[in-house]
Amino acid sequence: MIDDLEISNALLPVGFCDVLPSDAETEARGLQKMMNIFANYGYDRVNPPLLEFEQSLLAHAGKGIAEQTFRIMDPETRYMMGLRADITPQIARIAATRLINSPRPLRLSYAGLCIWVKGARHSAARQILQTGIELIGIDNAQADAEVILVTAQALQALGIQAFSFDLMMPQLVQAIIGPENFTSAQLGALMRALDRKDVAAVKYYGGDYSDILTAMLQAAGPADQAIGALRKLDFPAEAQRLFERLLASVKAVRNQDPDIELTIDPVEFRGWDYHTGLCISVYADGISGEVGRGGRYLSNNQEPACGLTLRPDILLQRAERPLSKSRVFVPYDCHRIEELSKLHEEGYVTLMSCAVEGDPEEEAHHLNCQYIYKKGKLFPL
Amino acid sequence: MIDDLEISNALLPVGFCDVLPSDAETEARGLQKMMNIFANYGYDRVNPPLLEFEQSLLAHAGKGIAEQTFRIMDPETRYMMGLRADITPQIARIAATRLINSPRPLRLSYAGLCIWVKGARHSAARQILQTGIELIGIDNAQADAEVILVTAQALQALGIQAFSFDLMMPQLVQAIIGPENFTSAQLGALMRALDRKDVAAVKYYGGDYSDILTAMLQAAGPADQAIGALRKLDFPAEAQRLFERLLASVKAVRNQDPDIELTIDPVEFRGWDYHTGLCISVYADGISGEVGRGGRYLSNNQEPACGLTLRPDILLQRAERPLSKSRVFVPYDCHRIEELSKLHEEGYVTLMSCAVEGDPEEEAHHLNCQYIYKKGKLFPL
Repeated sequence: MIDDLEISNALLPVGFCDVLPSDAETEARGLQKMMNIFANYGYDRVNPPLLEFEQSLLAHAGKGIAEQTFRIMDPETRYMMGLRADITPQIARIAATRLINSPRPLRLSYAGLCIWVKGARHSAARQILQTGIELIGIDNAQADAEVILVTAQALQALGIQAFSFDLMMPQLVQAIIGPENFTSAQLGALMRALDRKDVAAVKYYGGDYSDILTAMLQAAGPADQAIGALRKLDFPAEAQRLFERLLASVKAVRNQDPDIELTIDPVEFRGWDYHTGLCISVYADGISGEVGRGGRYLSNNQEPACGLTLRPDILLQRAERPLSKSRVFVPYDCHRIEELSKLHEEGYVTLMSCAVEGDPEEEAHHLNCQYIYKKGKLFPL
Repeated sequence: MIDDLEISNALLPVGFCDVLPSDAETEARGLQKMMNIFANYGYDRVNPPLLEFEQSLLAHAGKGIAEQTFRIMDPETRYMMGLRADITPQIARIAATRLINSPRPLRLSYAGLCIWVKGARHSAARQILQTGIELIGIDNAQADAEVILVTAQALQALGIQAFSFDLMMPQLVQAIIGPENFTSAQLGALMRALDRKDVAAVKYYGGDYSDILTAMLQAAGPADQAIGALRKLDFPAEAQRLFERLLASVKAVRNQDPDIELTIDPVEFRGWDYHTGLCISVYADGISGEVGRGGRYLSNNQEPACGLTLRPDILLQRAERPLSKSRVFVPYDCHRIEELSKLHEEGYVTLMSCAVEGDPEEEAHHLNCQYIYKKGKLFPL
């Protein structure tokens, strides 16, 4: 337990923090750069609220995040509200209600905070900054690719050059094994083995599918190599269809940006509960765990959709920091405020003296200024 | 009561809303402009978290907002957390803890969402966007003025030209009447009369102070006129000191920006609970109710501070809207993604076709594009 004395000081709940100067500025500017990229590609920004009724917040795609969602009673209606743990389900709601009549495909972007009940595996953070895009109303490989291509542009805008997209098709395994061929105990053991990527256990529990599943496990890796290995396998019809769609999505990305690093993990399925096609995890060099995730799903009106959510709070550890501006101390001498606008346009930050008396140079040093402003001119300190 | 069917659709709790395209963009750009102004004047951005322990969130200056704060139990510590209803107390906490060793005066800025349990008088909104500045560690008229001057610059950056600052000195009335001269019933009646600006009742309950209080009531209005009327009054020593400080603050604002509209309300005190000097309400033409408020207070370590919080969500009703960009439809023809960056630099938004087949011109019209991109060139539609 934490004692009262400690709590009354600067202690914040685990997973929450104060973002201090320079980091807060880096975050705001980075977010703005990403949102500009999204806007350039026609993704229009929407801002859903932090709280809404749990009945809408946790419906459809929101179901998966119910355990991570704090609830609060609305004193007006006595209905429970949820503090959002994910923005994507809100975007799906908006697309299916307020923007139901907007032309399709509908391109939406968002940026905002989410709160989680518990931290995740790679980070204790419970306040999460999300930004992302949703492409709603179209289901084809080019749409899958667009989401990846635009996200790659956003990462580059942050100055992040080394990143990769890991592509998955969670339905692929089920389409191969035909779950009806196993008892539920066998199926459970097999799925756990696949999840752990335990080749020996997959061989043991895989029955007639041991060979193909093992080959798929071993095919995981860079896209071209994985595709080469997967092409040799004899998939049943539905699995072949899923594989070909994966191929088409990879090809569509390559056509427009051959330099994007793509990997394929053909047996991954865990954590992709409401997804209906291609799933995507985003990784950046030097950052452990995902920096983004998304994929194809059905939006609230059963509309096909594909989206990707990035975590700028994590990414910005690696993002370019804005150059800090030179600081100009402006002594108290009844200058007009509009004089300073010119200095701002030239890229300076001005600190106006609040002291009528005292030594201006000393105060300027104290406030880490590089220049002092006197009679309309800058003097270096 | 709201029935389940309704709630399962698009209904949001009263006071919460989806900000849709164009409005969301206007809000983000407006906020960025304001934050740029604050940064230009040396105010460094900090981002405190949405949730923190109620013991720190509702301490000191946070006490006044306790009734408006939703509480949630932290499952980790079983301590109650508050969902912030105001950012200012968090800034005071940061100044007194993490930034205790930063040079003074400390200039901090912030922007973020707050949640209120109930809507306010002029608006049902329970999700509140706040942005503002705090100037911490100095107590003089020039510091009071700086906060007003910089806020005025931020309003102008939004394209809002007609605004005014209403100045108050909540301690002034108490310094004049000497509350010990009244029974508590008389004092209550007098304060209610002053609060309602009821001249007849002030005369009735004001005793020896009827004349001066009535004169003060009638002095309320544009700063120069109010100061003229107040100068004629015979204040007791402490009241005279407060009045002179008000004068000095007005003079400091005028010195640097004579065009700012200032009004004075010398008997106002309601709602200024933790303030210790000049209090400020900000109004903009065409918007009912305050668009901002702030003033002088003691920060967590009894450090003198003065700050102003604006409500960009309200202000942006009147702000300049960003010009909407021309939209270019890019047919599906395996163009490289980097080709489009040039169009973005020139100020165009591009919409990539996701359809391999179909008539590009028809799709372009459908998506409200003004141009179509073919073989590296733009063709108007």
